[in-house]
Amino acid sequence: MSKITVEKCQELIEAEYPLAIYWGFRIEDLGAGTARVRMPYSPKILRLGGTIAGPALMGLADFTMYFTVLTAYEYETGVQSVSTNLNTTFFRRPRQKDVVAHGRIQKAGRRMCFLEVELMSDEQPEAVAHVTGTYALPPQTA
Amino acid sequence: MSKITVEKCQELIEAEYPLAIYWGFRIEDLGAGTARVRMPYSPKILRLGGTIAGPALMGLADFTMYFTVLTAYEYETGVQSVSTNLNTTFFRRPRQKDVVAHGRIQKAGRRMCFLEVELMSDEQPEAVAHVTGTYALPPQTA
Amino acid sequence: MSKITVEKCQELIEAEYPLAIYWGFRIEDLGAGTARVRMPYSPKILRLGGTIAGPALMGLADFTMYFTVLTAYEYETGVQSVSTNLNTTFFRRPRQKDVVAHGRIQKAGRRMCFLEVELMSDEQPEAVAHVTGTYALPPQTA
Amino acid sequence: MSKITVEKCQELIEAEYPLAIYWGFRIEDLGAGTARVRMPYSPKILRLGGTIAGPALMGLADFTMYFTVLTAYEYETGVQSVSTNLNTTFFRRPRQKDVVAHGRIQKAGRRMCFLEVELMSDEQPEAVAHVTGTYALPPQTA
Repeated sequence: MSKITVEKCQELIEAEYPLAIYWGFRIEDLGAGTARVRMPYSPKILRLGGTIAGPALMGLADFTMYFTVLTAYEYETGVQSVSTNLNTTFFRRPRQKDVVAHGRIQKAGRRMCFLEVELMSDEQPEAVAHVTGTYALPPQTA
Repeated sequence: MSKITVEKCQELIEAEYPLAIYWGFRIEDLGAGTARVRMPYSPKILRLGGTIAGPALMGLADFTMYFTVLTAYEYETGVQSVSTNLNTTFFRRPRQKDVVAHGRIQKAGRRMCFLEVELMSDEQPEAVAHVTGTYALPPQTA
Repeated sequence: MSKITVEKCQELIEAEYPLAIYWGFRIEDLGAGTARVRMPYSPKILRLGGTIAGPALMGLADFTMYFTVLTAYEYETGVQSVSTNLNTTFFRRPRQKDVVAHGRIQKAGRRMCFLEVELMSDEQPEAVAHVTGTYALPPQTA
Repeated sequence: MSKITVEKCQELIEAEYPLAIYWGFRIEDLGAGTARVRMPYSPKILRLGGTIAGPALMGLADFTMYFTVLTAYEYETGVQSVSTNLNTTFFRRPRQKDVVAHGRIQKAGRRMCFLEVELMSDEQPEAVAHVTGTYALPPQTA
């Protein structure tokens, strides 16, 4: 079970993440070490050729990882985590549809959390991009 | 010498890259296989703790790579190039200042172009992040 | 179904891949876009602290990707494929056991093939490392 | 200035790194946060087509990073560091020559060290591969 609720994550977005508001990210589901986040289709994330720009996909992946971290750590620890590495592979052009990100913790360590995110065009069977990342957790003070 | 002018790149941004307009990217310099692009400091790119959000840094790096590709290839080839891989390492929190991206081609191949970008807080001596990437060029039709 | 047999892959190793012989790689299973390869535990792959060295793990992952490519492409195409990018994340120390690599194609394109490999200590439930990679296929001559 | 001598690093290889002995790695130079390491050309590192195999290049890069860490940290800290991420991009086929690795620290943090390595065919002007990596340092006990 997730250690944080969808509502609490949306509150955090409202208070602290203007880019996530701009992109309209909606957290759809949180589990134990998993998160599903939706980016609505919009002209403002397009690039030449009418395709969704890479930075919007990477932004969606990064936020999804952050919320995935929050599902598995105590709030004070998770909220202060920061990404140290993010590696994105772009497989194919996304459709002109919402993009849905599926985040998953690969290893939840004490000092670092390793994650992956798969990005899918809404209701399509194939991933458009795959992202792996490392989040550093704040040093334990106890 | 760059195969494209700063003005032509800014026109391309205006016409095709709403995210680059939103972030206010300004191309400052183009060389033979190099580009320098500035992201002005603004509250809309912040995240929790008042630091600049990772997605804005990755967005700046991706656009800088794209314009770096355009300095080295014929226009029709470069403009249709797409990123297939982008790997970002975050070294330290950026200052509350503009971020300046220095892009450089590592290898300009016929099918793929390999690049790196160093991101610096304005007028600071140390990089805040380092990004490597691969762009795929469109298949040659000639 | 795999386009190549286990026997044919082992022949290729014998003829062309002295490092794979040195490490004792054994191909255990090939499917349509999947491969399972075993690296036997041996003192020659250890590093300080008695743990298996990163380069042996990366070598296993790279060879596993190569054989995974061969399961999905015509022989002449697959055998000439070369890795252009390999990104490894090390999650935990491997046990003093064989390492088993599970390779899977993420996207089999015409010019590039994207893959991932999970590395497991034999009979353990948790991955020790995760690797993503890109292979470039030779230009089509037809 | 390096915190460790070339002789001490070679001793460490002899005692603890059989793969580095197998490959014949020779540390040529150590500076403050820099290292140059040579892999002699040998048939045992080849792959199909007579080119040097990716795993040998990645092995050279990983060892070079390790010794680069040792130039910048106290011995007990550096020797216990472990790689958590290694990202390799292969630019071109190496020549049938020695490969020389140039390692450099990008950021020496308290918990993590970020590095890059450029791999060159001996006496050639262009890099054959570029590697970025992250090493985790052991938790401070003091």
